[in-house]
Amino acid sequence: MKRHVPLRLGMVGGGAGALIGNVHRIAARIDGEFQLVAGALSSTPEKAQQSAATLGIAEDRAYDNFEKMAETESAREDGIEVVAICTPNHLHGPASKAFLDRGIHVICDKPLTATMAQARELTEAAKSSGALFFLTHNYSGYPQIRLAREMVARGDLGKIRLVMVEYAQDWLTEPSDSKQAEWRSDPERAGAGGAIGDIGTHAFQLARFVTGMLPEKLAADLTAFVPGRKLDDNANVLMRYAGGAKGTLWCSQVAPGTENGLKLRVYGDKGGLEWAHEAPETLWFTPFGEAARKLRRGGPGTTDSAAESSRIPAGHPEGYLEGFANLYREAAAAIRAQQEGRPLPDPLLVPDLQDGLEGLHFIDACIRSDEADNGWVEVMP
Amino acid sequence: MKRHVPLRLGMVGGGAGALIGNVHRIAARIDGEFQLVAGALSSTPEKAQQSAATLGIAEDRAYDNFEKMAETESAREDGIEVVAICTPNHLHGPASKAFLDRGIHVICDKPLTATMAQARELTEAAKSSGALFFLTHNYSGYPQIRLAREMVARGDLGKIRLVMVEYAQDWLTEPSDSKQAEWRSDPERAGAGGAIGDIGTHAFQLARFVTGMLPEKLAADLTAFVPGRKLDDNANVLMRYAGGAKGTLWCSQVAPGTENGLKLRVYGDKGGLEWAHEAPETLWFTPFGEAARKLRRGGPGTTDSAAESSRIPAGHPEGYLEGFANLYREAAAAIRAQQEGRPLPDPLLVPDLQDGLEGLHFIDACIRSDEADNGWVEVMP
Amino acid sequence: MKRHVPLRLGMVGGGAGALIGNVHRIAARIDGEFQLVAGALSSTPEKAQQSAATLGIAEDRAYDNFEKMAETESAREDGIEVVAICTPNHLHGPASKAFLDRGIHVICDKPLTATMAQARELTEAAKSSGALFFLTHNYSGYPQIRLAREMVARGDLGKIRLVMVEYAQDWLTEPSDSKQAEWRSDPERAGAGGAIGDIGTHAFQLARFVTGMLPEKLAADLTAFVPGRKLDDNANVLMRYAGGAKGTLWCSQVAPGTENGLKLRVYGDKGGLEWAHEAPETLWFTPFGEAARKLRRGGPGTTDSAAESSRIPAGHPEGYLEGFANLYREAAAAIRAQQEGRPLPDPLLVPDLQDGLEGLHFIDACIRSDEADNGWVEVMP
Amino acid sequence: MKRHVPLRLGMVGGGAGALIGNVHRIAARIDGEFQLVAGALSSTPEKAQQSAATLGIAEDRAYDNFEKMAETESAREDGIEVVAICTPNHLHGPASKAFLDRGIHVICDKPLTATMAQARELTEAAKSSGALFFLTHNYSGYPQIRLAREMVARGDLGKIRLVMVEYAQDWLTEPSDSKQAEWRSDPERAGAGGAIGDIGTHAFQLARFVTGMLPEKLAADLTAFVPGRKLDDNANVLMRYAGGAKGTLWCSQVAPGTENGLKLRVYGDKGGLEWAHEAPETLWFTPFGEAARKLRRGGPGTTDSAAESSRIPAGHPEGYLEGFANLYREAAAAIRAQQEGRPLPDPLLVPDLQDGLEGLHFIDACIRSDEADNGWVEVMP
Repeated sequence: MKRHVPLRLGMVGGGAGALIGNVHRIAARIDGEFQLVAGALSSTPEKAQQSAATLGIAEDRAYDNFEKMAETESAREDGIEVVAICTPNHLHGPASKAFLDRGIHVICDKPLTATMAQARELTEAAKSSGALFFLTHNYSGYPQIRLAREMVARGDLGKIRLVMVEYAQDWLTEPSDSKQAEWRSDPERAGAGGAIGDIGTHAFQLARFVTGMLPEKLAADLTAFVPGRKLDDNANVLMRYAGGAKGTLWCSQVAPGTENGLKLRVYGDKGGLEWAHEAPETLWFTPFGEAARKLRRGGPGTTDSAAESSRIPAGHPEGYLEGFANLYREAAAAIRAQQEGRPLPDPLLVPDLQDGLEGLHFIDACIRSDEADNGWVEVMP
Repeated sequence: MKRHVPLRLGMVGGGAGALIGNVHRIAARIDGEFQLVAGALSSTPEKAQQSAATLGIAEDRAYDNFEKMAETESAREDGIEVVAICTPNHLHGPASKAFLDRGIHVICDKPLTATMAQARELTEAAKSSGALFFLTHNYSGYPQIRLAREMVARGDLGKIRLVMVEYAQDWLTEPSDSKQAEWRSDPERAGAGGAIGDIGTHAFQLARFVTGMLPEKLAADLTAFVPGRKLDDNANVLMRYAGGAKGTLWCSQVAPGTENGLKLRVYGDKGGLEWAHEAPETLWFTPFGEAARKLRRGGPGTTDSAAESSRIPAGHPEGYLEGFANLYREAAAAIRAQQEGRPLPDPLLVPDLQDGLEGLHFIDACIRSDEADNGWVEVMP
Repeated sequence: MKRHVPLRLGMVGGGAGALIGNVHRIAARIDGEFQLVAGALSSTPEKAQQSAATLGIAEDRAYDNFEKMAETESAREDGIEVVAICTPNHLHGPASKAFLDRGIHVICDKPLTATMAQARELTEAAKSSGALFFLTHNYSGYPQIRLAREMVARGDLGKIRLVMVEYAQDWLTEPSDSKQAEWRSDPERAGAGGAIGDIGTHAFQLARFVTGMLPEKLAADLTAFVPGRKLDDNANVLMRYAGGAKGTLWCSQVAPGTENGLKLRVYGDKGGLEWAHEAPETLWFTPFGEAARKLRRGGPGTTDSAAESSRIPAGHPEGYLEGFANLYREAAAAIRAQQEGRPLPDPLLVPDLQDGLEGLHFIDACIRSDEADNGWVEVMP
Repeated sequence: MKRHVPLRLGMVGGGAGALIGNVHRIAARIDGEFQLVAGALSSTPEKAQQSAATLGIAEDRAYDNFEKMAETESAREDGIEVVAICTPNHLHGPASKAFLDRGIHVICDKPLTATMAQARELTEAAKSSGALFFLTHNYSGYPQIRLAREMVARGDLGKIRLVMVEYAQDWLTEPSDSKQAEWRSDPERAGAGGAIGDIGTHAFQLARFVTGMLPEKLAADLTAFVPGRKLDDNANVLMRYAGGAKGTLWCSQVAPGTENGLKLRVYGDKGGLEWAHEAPETLWFTPFGEAARKLRRGGPGTTDSAAESSRIPAGHPEGYLEGFANLYREAAAAIRAQQEGRPLPDPLLVPDLQDGLEGLHFIDACIRSDEADNGWVEVMP
């Protein structure tokens, strides 16, 4: 009888007080597929040790830099099999590369890297590594988003005409000196995108994931509303798709009263879909000429894929952490398949390097368009 | 003791089967301020007579063209004091002019006219007439919209940064040969704008009314999704305001599942507002850093102006017809003031010629921008 | 060609400052079926005259008591054909009787009368009169309520098991000396029921109207929460129906934050329905094992009867006044049918004497049960 | 530097295919406070072994009955410190007792036991044990429920008048032979309560937790709507509290379209609160005479206690599993405090034996009242 053994997980970044590191840890725990055994949780040695102790990581596996961690862990018999990268954006590329180069699988927070140059290096590293790379565009982990994707793919909406997506927050409405705000508004660490990088890429990926469509061109109007802010805190973007579909993307960090207001609406010539993060377990399906149907997670109208992305019965709310955990669970399944020489799951829904590259191109295109006074630019030139 | 006597009202257009004519009639009836006594309800004589009979209009005041009606009524001792224009767009200008020229007040459906040339003629006519001209951008009649306007004006939102407005319908998702669809998609009768003229102008005016701000520039991406359609059925528009505010306007007639999905969101540096037509009695106020407040028609937080735009207690839903009736009631008050030599009510919230001109410029700017491949154009050149 | 002539309407009660009188007047105006030509709007002569003048009623048809009005009007060639009774409850019976006795049709506000004795007298008067009697349980005028009724009747829900209805307000949370509150909490004028009479009867009638079922027994727990209040301001009621269905009715005037929170939920062995006054244009239909469907006024899934109870397209909100106006419109149709010797419309959806009697029995049963410490009592003994 | 070590956890029940066992496991994992090391997951030896293997439990710690497990584990140096009881109801008491008797802490699913006799035995066992006992009435783990509790306690609502609670499901609308349905409708294993035991106790405890009030009397109308069902599948219950407050409780398993429709409304003389499971991150606060405030998890208006019951920023939905995990996290904190000789956290919000006893008395009172044809009975006689 085969006994379940969790994958050995390491983490870079995500020390005490970090937001996203804790999210990754919970996502990794929920299904019991991972055990956190090593970390370079902070570049401050004392903080790295303290954070590791709090998480039950052994003293000799608490590192203060990811190079050392990659080197040491890859040499251990019981070294980590997979690493989660939860640093500020500018380290995503170098840290991921360090582990891929040593054959350690990577689960990296988004965006892929801070620059296109880093992205190219990482792409090369991934190509030459036997290890897998995953990117946590976690919103695509929601069951009703996966249902939406299948409904579009099987033609429930007909030919897609309109893709309206938005992601609105308010936490940067005023100048902020929080730790979260600080690096996110610093081009050195965040990259060239402000709101477009931090949340715009999520919106972009969500629309891409659900519709399967990548816009050909976009026209972007970027703004930094708060005086002194170096990066955009709002973007109004128009999209054009091959085949004639159109769309808009709005992302903002200065919209008071919004929280993490991600919302997607897709309209085709036969019907529409609407999903909002505030009620993530509901997907509205509006076939033209019929009454709107409220498709609930786990409820009537679900599909195998959506049902498998779920843990508890309909009406017991699942949320952000469970969606995030879906990516971890699927990454685990893929890693085990590779370890055991089996083919990877197909489809493999957890986002990967390609999603990351598209996100970087989206950021880049927004900036190019904005510099051209909102002119149309190619998204993937 | 002064006894109430309703104003004598005539109507052009709005014969049997017409949608908007019936709306105007109900709006005129609700407060007992008008009595319909004459009409040129159809250009088909028999239909004009039949429609008039159904409405209790005397046979000799049932006309089959508006020129005749204007001439005859203006000569009667008991002739109409005010006329409602409910024709297809291309007749708004000529019909309005015919009555203004004879000193008869006009309540005209939007848009102002089908062309800029007509608008100029009508403007001249209005200037040289002693009569008043009102335009039924009825959504600005909703009490919570008026409350929103006052809240912006008194600074509750701080300096405005973002104005997001949309109006989505689905009734033109497929090719349609209904009477409503037919003239609305014919440039000869509707004017140069399709969705932008029919509903985009409403969205534009609503944002304008609430914020008091007129965009300087816009960039528009117009589409006719349905094959063979001559006018746009979808528009994605970016806005830029003096002072740095930005915005978007989306209007669509091909978004399955939407009905009359007008929605406005305004964000300033101190707070936000959100209003949606589906629940018109609720205005969301989100002061930055405080809990969202649900401001209900007639409820706590209302203002005199909003309260006066209402008839029944909070929780007894008022709707579209009551909002429309507010314009009629205010038009009546203004007409009576003028008749009695009193100053007009101030502020006079019912939209007028200026709103109509701005709406035409909006349509025109959208078309110019679209022709320039979505380039920025001046809204009021 | 037959020319439309409105019915000549009188009104008892509803003078300046009255709430429900104005509602009746607007409801009567909306479809142009009535013209208000006489009134006993107040028992104070000066106020009666003043109110009449404000409404355009001729001086000689402004009465200061309903007996005089009934006598005089019934003797006039152009006397009123129908009267609206909008007084406090204790006058509903006597005033209605005065007109019925003279062959004048009556549209009376609810409840039927303040006492069972009055109800018996009125019933006799109605039987011996050729005139029609209507009761404005206006919530049954909403199109989606009519749709609900048809869906239950045609078996969409299967055999009904549960009927949950509530009507919650907050305006009597604190002691109040408003005019509205004053007579409503005075047993002499309101009758023996407080909340149960004022709003509980509405909830009762709504459930009755939709399900077609009348409970056999009820058990009621009545409370007057506000010190010194003579009548109940809250009632928790259990219901039992023939055939085994069960239900609850909650009505309250002391639930802070509620407005006119009428809500109905009906569950059968095949599906459920839910309707809430806050969004009256939506009826939720939940067939067991299928996705919930949002049935919108005027939208897919509507029926002829529901569509005929409506005036404007889906998505343009109709509300309380339009629902009320449906009763007036249907009363007009019935009156005209009778005048012209045609059979009355069938079904005639506007509530009548029978609904009023059931409401009185409901009040009476609640009081009897409460006096028996919440014991089960027959509803219609 | 103190390194974190998880508590050693065992589990009784919850083998392959079990619903609630998996919920307990995820709740135990989320914060990394527990490690599952032993289990009596099934009474079928093979299934017990297989389930244990799947969960990574060592072969020698996979038991096929809880007595053996309690005996063996309590004798091990590295034996479990705490056990989760996830069996059908009739084993809650005996299993809990077996571990308490050996000084092992217990986290038990609700209801406390299947019978009052079992409850008395368990109470004795708990008294004489040094170990702690927790009961997973998990809905009280939601942050906004804790906020509600604090708001009531600090007087935001004034004196409480009304407590309206409901829990509606539809999964037993038709006869069912699912594993979940089977034992829940069998008096031998579920106890004497059907819906009242399975979900009514949750609703009862939620109201109790938030208001701090225990009803003195209740009157219950129980029904088994589905032919052949031995236990109630619907209950309509009236409540009376000391001091004059009143309330209702409705629980149903035959309401098509509901999922896990738990909803609580509390009204006092100064304000109201409303919370619904479908949107668990929103708590509506309606101070009398002020606009309703939407209090969001992690948002403005939160309290320390509510914030500590949360893991991620506002707008990233948390749900059922996180609420459940709050109980596990707090149980862990209490266990560690006891292990280390520190005082237990105060307040200790995770429900305990007393909550369980009250729940049993609620079930018992409902049955006694129903047998007395809905008469008033004492809740805690």
